[in-house]
This record gives sequence, structure tokens and C-alpha cells, in this order.
Amino acid sequence: MTYRAPLADIGSALKHGAALSSAIEEGLFGDLTMDVVDAVLVEAGRIAGEVIAPLNRVGDTYGTPFKDGTVTTPPGWKEAYHAWRTGGWNGLSAPTEWGGQALPHVVNAACTEMWQAASMAFADGPMLTMGAVDALSAHGNEQLKRTYLQKLVSGEWMGTMQLTEPQAGSDVGALRTRAERVDDGSYRIKGQKIFITYGEHDLTPNIIHFVLARLPDAPPGTRGISLFLVPKFLVNDDGSLGARNDVRAHSVEHKLGIHGSPTCTMIFGDAGGATGFLVGEENAGMACMFTMMNQARLAVGLQGVGIAERATQLALAYARERRQGRVATMPASQSATIIAHPDVKRMLLTMRALTHAARAICYATAMALDRSERSADAAIRKTALAHASLLTPVAKAFSTDIGIEVASLGVQVHGGMGYIEEAGAAQIFRDARIAAIYEGTNGIQAIDLVTRKLPLDGGTAVASHIRELRDIVATVNAGNDPTLGWTPVRFGDAVESLARATEWLLGHLDKDADAALAGATPYLRLFGMATGGCYLARQALAAHRLGEEAGARLALSRFFAENLAVQAGGLERTIVEGAPSLMSADAALAD
Amino acid sequence: MTYRAPLADIGSALKHGAALSSAIEEGLFGDLTMDVVDAVLVEAGRIAGEVIAPLNRVGDTYGTPFKDGTVTTPPGWKEAYHAWRTGGWNGLSAPTEWGGQALPHVVNAACTEMWQAASMAFADGPMLTMGAVDALSAHGNEQLKRTYLQKLVSGEWMGTMQLTEPQAGSDVGALRTRAERVDDGSYRIKGQKIFITYGEHDLTPNIIHFVLARLPDAPPGTRGISLFLVPKFLVNDDGSLGARNDVRAHSVEHKLGIHGSPTCTMIFGDAGGATGFLVGEENAGMACMFTMMNQARLAVGLQGVGIAERATQLALAYARERRQGRVATMPASQSATIIAHPDVKRMLLTMRALTHAARAICYATAMALDRSERSADAAIRKTALAHASLLTPVAKAFSTDIGIEVASLGVQVHGGMGYIEEAGAAQIFRDARIAAIYEGTNGIQAIDLVTRKLPLDGGTAVASHIRELRDIVATVNAGNDPTLGWTPVRFGDAVESLARATEWLLGHLDKDADAALAGATPYLRLFGMATGGCYLARQALAAHRLGEEAGARLALSRFFAENLAVQAGGLERTIVEGAPSLMSADAALAD
Repeated sequence: MTYRAPLADIGSALKHGAALSSAIEEGLFGDLTMDVVDAVLVEAGRIAGEVIAPLNRVGDTYGTPFKDGTVTTPPGWKEAYHAWRTGGWNGLSAPTEWGGQALPHVVNAACTEMWQAASMAFADGPMLTMGAVDALSAHGNEQLKRTYLQKLVSGEWMGTMQLTEPQAGSDVGALRTRAERVDDGSYRIKGQKIFITYGEHDLTPNIIHFVLARLPDAPPGTRGISLFLVPKFLVNDDGSLGARNDVRAHSVEHKLGIHGSPTCTMIFGDAGGATGFLVGEENAGMACMFTMMNQARLAVGLQGVGIAERATQLALAYARERRQGRVATMPASQSATIIAHPDVKRMLLTMRALTHAARAICYATAMALDRSERSADAAIRKTALAHASLLTPVAKAFSTDIGIEVASLGVQVHGGMGYIEEAGAAQIFRDARIAAIYEGTNGIQAIDLVTRKLPLDGGTAVASHIRELRDIVATVNAGNDPTLGWTPVRFGDAVESLARATEWLLGHLDKDADAALAGATPYLRLFGMATGGCYLARQALAAHRLGEEAGARLALSRFFAENLAVQAGGLERTIVEGAPSLMSADAALAD
Repeated sequence: MTYRAPLADIGSALKHGAALSSAIEEGLFGDLTMDVVDAVLVEAGRIAGEVIAPLNRVGDTYGTPFKDGTVTTPPGWKEAYHAWRTGGWNGLSAPTEWGGQALPHVVNAACTEMWQAASMAFADGPMLTMGAVDALSAHGNEQLKRTYLQKLVSGEWMGTMQLTEPQAGSDVGALRTRAERVDDGSYRIKGQKIFITYGEHDLTPNIIHFVLARLPDAPPGTRGISLFLVPKFLVNDDGSLGARNDVRAHSVEHKLGIHGSPTCTMIFGDAGGATGFLVGEENAGMACMFTMMNQARLAVGLQGVGIAERATQLALAYARERRQGRVATMPASQSATIIAHPDVKRMLLTMRALTHAARAICYATAMALDRSERSADAAIRKTALAHASLLTPVAKAFSTDIGIEVASLGVQVHGGMGYIEEAGAAQIFRDARIAAIYEGTNGIQAIDLVTRKLPLDGGTAVASHIRELRDIVATVNAGNDPTLGWTPVRFGDAVESLARATEWLLGHLDKDADAALAGATPYLRLFGMATGGCYLARQALAAHRLGEEAGARLALSRFFAENLAVQAGGLERTIVEGAPSLMSADAALAD
């Protein structure tokens, strides 16, 4: 089971889809050139394909054995991690003052997709470390930054993100881990966290935990939560490792997939309290955590893209080799590769189209983040930030939902072999399933989209997004290209469904919140289908306009329009009509 | 992880959905009474829930170790199998002359659903044995029947179904296993079969293999295939076991799920040739195999229903216990069970609605089979057989597709716990995945539906089916019940979409077969959604008319109409408009 980084697709999605070329031309990224970006992508692709991807099955079969409080990572992982981090990949988009390379988020997004495609379990740890870097950069005081940031940026140490407790999953405000003030300005942390990704491992000599906890006098709920940095080993003034801190892994979970990623239960304060350092202000931990989580949510979306790409490559390779049956024009003595059968072609095109659409959404999100940080114009920064905020839950949930669907189609393309672990499709199917759950379940993303993101700036963010999509439809339409079939009509239908559903939700948020919440998940799906589809068309047309060979991209965009975007009408109906039947069906769930 | 047989739902689906009550009243099943049926269901539910269900996780973790050619089944399985077969369950619908109870197929279908819900891996073996009984009853000569049928009916011996070879999966005509005539009238079988469910195990002292093979002078393709009965141990004239036959398991697969079900590679004729006995005529093996497979396809559909029911029960139990967050009306100090959140309610209702719809389709298929065998009127028998043939691929593929979707939603309802193996939702997700693959992939089912079943009797079978659905819509409409909301409109839309798509496919089958094939899978989905939805409404209204408490069923049927059946329009578009974009997108799959 190999992975070859799809550099042409990624390049096209970056340049034409996320408009990186024009951003570079307008000077958004200083003296960065597209040649540099291309060189970065080629090297990332090489490492993903040659160094990381071969470890993926090893991780699945070996797992992360836990003994005497320590986790052993699978054979070869330590060496691969060392090669990866010394290549500078961990700090690709981190600030230069801490040793990062300050490349665009959108370039890091493309690389993240490749790490995730190569091995979700491997890339899980770096993903959280990058989130930790963001939180510490944005909210940490100078001393914390000086002590920890450079080593986190370089990946010499890794970071964790610790929110979840047994009674506090989606409802983070219910967490009980305690933090007590100590005279020296530090804090004593006591409590238990569960489902902690890379909570313990042997890849790095120190692990820096970012922990949400509650002060004794904190107000209830999310307004009483503070963020603490809790190192596994305390750090001496000279930067060397000091005493072991009072935090330890208690156990490692036995999971459906990502077996190479250790998921730990963590105990703080068994021996009196773990030493922690406040990040940001007391009781303002949620804001810090959101910095970390927004980045992580986009990264999890990219897991969805990466795993979908991997599943598609594997299924395509199988479908080009495997011979079964004949197509209509074939003599009885021959047999066809199964890719020739229309039903198999439908599965493969669906896989590819959904993967490309999710990629387009994720890269657009990252580019909006870049603009929100780098534009010289404050108004553009503000608009871009709103757009990034709007797109983030869609990038996370749509991409991971389609990651699961594509992985499942990948199993199906393989027929019986898909169910055999050695063939690899089954592992992808198992691995993909987590991404819809962690970093905020996809239901939570949908609720975030509907209740927080739609009303942003009085609805102007979503209005401007829909305008963007309408412009794309108008451009497709103006092209008047008969080979596009129903493309402009079906994308137009999808965007208008999105517009009407948006209006309906905005109108019901205040007066009938439950009705709006009932439609949140189908709305996010509609948003993703309309946006991803239109972005595909934009990308194909942009390539076509520049004289690049764009036939494959135009064909994929048409396939999306006529076979997938046509679901929009049904989703709109579900959103605007479905709530009463949902709210009145409690009896159907009682027994 | 427990399973409680949903006897009220099953009873309602049998009586009102599949109209078992009226069939009994009109005397279709002799002196059978509904009381007897109810007693059978209660006892089956008890065994499924108390005897089989507790073995499901044992089977998953223990697997089926293979050593020195023998398979050890998981602890407790032998005892449970013995209890099950001595209860007479294996022969529930088998002919009385061979020790069966000759109960209706539809009652056996309900029981099969329960065995499958309790443990797919456990029920896999009996499922194939029942198929073997059908094939042997229908096509075997008297001597074979006398020697084998009683023991297969009683379950004292189990049967296997051996079609697949490495180069012959969906394309069974490509098989190469050889059969040579021997002077005594028997045959020598040589070859290799793969993916053989329960090919070797220790549950019964003998295993009777039903093997497709090719005679030396056989015509190529499926017209040159013959069916042979190949016992693991030859049987002496007095019925005692004789010599070991030259057939053995070579290995057992390492699979994504159903770990308790041994999937074997089988070798025939290592020592000169396995002794086999012809079933039916030479070169007429496919017809025999279809007898076995049609039954097995319906049974696999019931696996989908069973696993969906199991997933729903587990998710519901979790959602009623797990507390997270608050609903709108709740003070900050309280927290709600997650079932109260609209988004979770949507998942659970979707699970339940799809499960009930698939059940309704499967039971209707079984009832059509019963009518095709038992009606006194030849015309009715013929019509019923055509209806059963039409519905079988839908029962198989729609039910197993929704089995996977419901299992995935079940994981999602659990949040992080869903990904932890101990919670059980993950096993269901893994187990469910196979059912869309074996007994003919769901793509093959869709092609069967479109290319073989739609044209049946010049299209009259599907026309009569659509008439049946229109009658249901008319009845819902005539009820004029405002609590049903858009139910009649949305089901009406779905049925008309089905009607138009059917007409389009029938019109294109001859002149543009690829275009028809391209729409096969979305067509089967549309067929399942329209049929399953309407059947739910019919069942709810029938219960209502009889004065039963039908509020929950009416509410579920409305939820289906307004939230799920609304996908019909998009599916229709895909079928009638999507083929050109699919056929012209080869470039998008080349790289």
C-alpha cells in the first residue's frame, strides 16, 4: 500500500483554487515565489511517500504498547520522526523568530494533507504540536515562549491538547480538573484527562501538555476555564530537562483505528499536583484553546482530505489491475479491468470528486487565514478572518465525512479483498472514522456553523460567501461550453438551495432555535457540496483560462455537478421542512 | 453490549407490513395461527438475546485460530450452536419431509434478522446451510437428499457455498476448478476456492461443501458450470462418517470484522481429487447456485437489518444515559441526556427509520416468496415470484448499505467512546461492512436489478410494484391527517421519481446499456428509499386502522418522508442526467 503525493492536483488546488499564485503576485507573502512553493511541495511529497507512508501499516499492526507508564512507538517511527522534524517541517508556517519558516498556512495545509495521507496515526502528534505552537505564540508570556516555543517549533519536543474528561466531552465547560495558585506564580494541577492523543510516547525527550483546568474561585462553565502549560519534565533555567513533573499516562485505549497514535488517559497530581504555568489570563482559557482548536480543526479536515486521497489512489490502482467480466464491446475470450465498468467508474469518480472538493474547501480556509494575518488592508483582514471562521467547521466536518464515505467506497471497489486487512483498504476505513469525532464532533461543527458562524457580522460573512459562489456560477455559465452539460445549472441550483436554507436558518435562530439546530448537519453538508463543487469549477476554469490542460478537471467538475450537487434540493427540503417531524417523533425513540 | 429482540417492531412489520395476518386468514399457510407465530418469535428473541448475543464480542476478540488444518471456534460457540440447532431453528422453513417445520419464509426471515443482530459472525454459518438446503431440495437427486438433507436441515452438519476463486469473484464464469467424471457416477474435484465462509470449523462433525466446478468438455463461461456436493467426510451407506475427503482448508483470512466467522481458502484434490456428487444436471450449475444465492441474498439483506437494529439499540441506550450540555429550557446547573439534542435525535431517527424501511423490504420479499410457493392460484404464484425476484437485489443491497450507514451513525452518536473497541459500536461498524460485499457486491445487485429484473415479463413486475406504491401514497393522502405533514407529498414525489427513472432505464437498456449501467446504483437506492418509505407508511396506517397505538410509527414514517425520501429527486437526476458526465470523465481517473 503506497502513497504518491498528488503534486499536480495539489498544485492546481493551491494556485488556481486557493489563488495562491495571485496572492504571491500581489506580494502578500513578501518575496516568496511559486518556485519555492513548488520545491517545498516536491520535497514534502517525497518524505510523505518514501519516509512516512511505509510506516503506516507497521503502526497499525504494532500499535503503541503501554508498560510501566511508558509507550513504545512502532518500529521505525522514531527515526522517521527525527528525519521529518530535522527537515524543518514542523515549523513550516511558524514564526521565524522561534525558528519557523513563516511560509503561508495554505502551503502548510498542502503539506499537512500529505503527512496525513501518508499516515494519520503518525501525523496526529505533529498536528497537535502545531496547534500548541499557535496557542503559545498568541497567548503565552515572554518567559514561557522563550523556554518552550523554539523546541516546540523545531519538534524537538511535542505538544498535547488536553480538554476531554469522562464527564466533559463536547461539553468542555463541565471539566473538573483543578488548578491551585502557588506563591511562585505557578499552579498545581490535579485531575484526569481522557482521549489524549500522544499523551505519552518515546518520540521526544519532553512532552508539553496544554491543559484546561479550573481555579478554585472560577465561575462555572466555560467562563471559568484556564489554560496551563504542563511539561512532562520541568525545564531548568539553562534549558536542560529537570525533574519529572507529576503527570503520567495511566492507560492507552484500544481503538478501531489509528493504532499507531497513542490515545492516553492522563493523571495529574497523583503526588500532590503537577506544576503548570498559566497561558494567557486566568479564566480566559477557552479563547486560548480556540486558537489551538481552530488550527487543529482545519488540520483534521486535511486528515479527511488526505485519507480520502489515499483511499482513492489505492482503489484506482486495484481497479486498473483487477480483471473481472467484460464490457459491452469485448469478445468473450477477454476480460476487462474493473475500472471499465460504469458502476466502478461511478465509485472512483465519486471518490475523486469528493476528495478534490474537500481539498478545495480546506485550502480556501487556509488562504483566508493567511489573508487575515497578512493583508495590508485592515478591512480585508477582517473580512478574511470572518471567511476563515465561517469555513473552518465546514472544512473540518465536510472533509472528514467524505473521508469516511470515500474510504468506504474504497473498500467496496476492492470487493472481497477490501475486507482483508492485508490489502490496506480496511485500515483506511478504520483510520478515517475517528476524524469525524475528535476536535469537536461533526455535529458540534454543524452547530457551530449554524449558531455562531452564520450570524457573524450580522450575516455578512455568509452573504459574501454566497456571492462568491454565485459569481463562480455566473462565470461557468458565461463560458457557454457545451461539454460542461448541466454544470452551470446544477451548481446554480445548489447555490440557490444554500442561499434559501441560509436565509431560513437565520430567520429561525432566534425564534425557534431547536428547528435551526435540527437542520444543522444537513445544512453543513449542503454548504460543503455547494462550496466544494463551485470551487472545483473555478479551479478548472482558471486552469483552462491560463491555457493549461484542464480537460480532466472540467470533466470532474461536471461529474460533481450532475451526480453529486444534485443532492442539494433534497438537503434544502430537509433543512426547511424536516424539523417539525424530527421534533415530534420522540415516541419513535421510546421503547 | 446487549441485544433485545424488537418483538413489537418485528411483529408489526410482519402483520401489517408484510400482511402476514391476512395471509394466515386467507389460509395461505394451512392451519398456522398468529399465536403460533408469536410464540416462535418470542422464543427466537430469547435465544438470540440470551444465548447468541453474549458470544458476539467473544467471537470478535478470539477470532478463529487456524492450526494444522483445523479451525477452533470461539469459546462457547459450540455449545450455543448445539442449543440453537437442537431447538429446531435451522429447519424452521425447511420441508417437513426432511425434518423441517415448513413455517413461512417470512417468519424465518424475522428469526434470521434476530440471529444476525445477535451475532453476524455466528449466524453466517447457518445462513449458508439454509441456502444449501434449498439448493439440494430443489435440485438434488433422491439419493443425495436421503443421505444429506435431513442432517443439513437439523443442522447436525453444516453447509458451505463455494463459488469464488482468485480470478473469479463477481465474474463467476471465470472459475477454473475442475470436475472429472468417475465410472461410479461420482466426480473428482480439483482446484482452489477462496473467501469460503465456514469452510472449516469444529461446530459440526461433517461439513457439506457445495462447489461450482467445470467439466473437461464444458462450454466456456457460466453455461459450463456444474454444482457438486463435496462432503468433508464421505458418508457410508448406513449414514455413518467414512473416509476423510480430499478437501481441506489451507488458511483463514485476517478480516476487518466478523472475526468469529472463519473465512477459508479451500484446496480440493491435493491427493488426487475430492469426491463430489453432481447436484442437478451437468453444466446447469448456475441455476442451482441461484436457488442457493437468492435465499442467501435475502438473508444477507437481513444481516443488514439486524446489524442496523443492533447499532440503533446500542446508540439509543448510550444517548439515554450520556449527559452533555443543556437544551434551551434548562438551567445552567443541569445537563441533558444527549438524546435531547436535535442533532443527536436526527441521527437516532435516521438510524431507526432506515432500519425499519429495510426490514419492511426484506419481509415483503420473503412474503412474496411464500406466495410464489403456496398460493393456490398459478397466476398469483407467477406474479409473486416476479415480485420476489424484483425485490431480492433491493433487499440485499439497500439493507446492507443502510446497515453500514446506520453502524457509522451509531459510532458517531457515541462520540469518542464510539472509537473505543470495548464500547461495541466499533465492532458493529466493522462487522456491517462485509454485507455490502459478499453474496454479490451491491454493485452487482444494482446491475441485476436494472438489467435482469426491470425487463422481467416485459416490465410488468416493476410496473405492478410502482402501482402498489402509488396505491399506498393514495391511501396516505386520503387519510387527510394534518399530523402527517408533507408525508403524502414527499412519498408521492419519491414514487414518481422512481417511475420516471424506471421508464428512462427501460428505454435505454437496449440502445445505451452503459448509460443504464451507470445509473444502476443510484437507481437501486431510489428504489429502496421509495419502497421502504411507502412500506413504513402502509404499516403505520394499517396499525392505526386496526386501532393499535400507531403514533410512533406514523411519526417515523413522516420523519422518513420529510428528511430521507426527499433525496429521491436528486437520485432521479443522477440516473437520467448523470451518465454522460460519467462516461466522458475517463481523463479524471488517469494519472
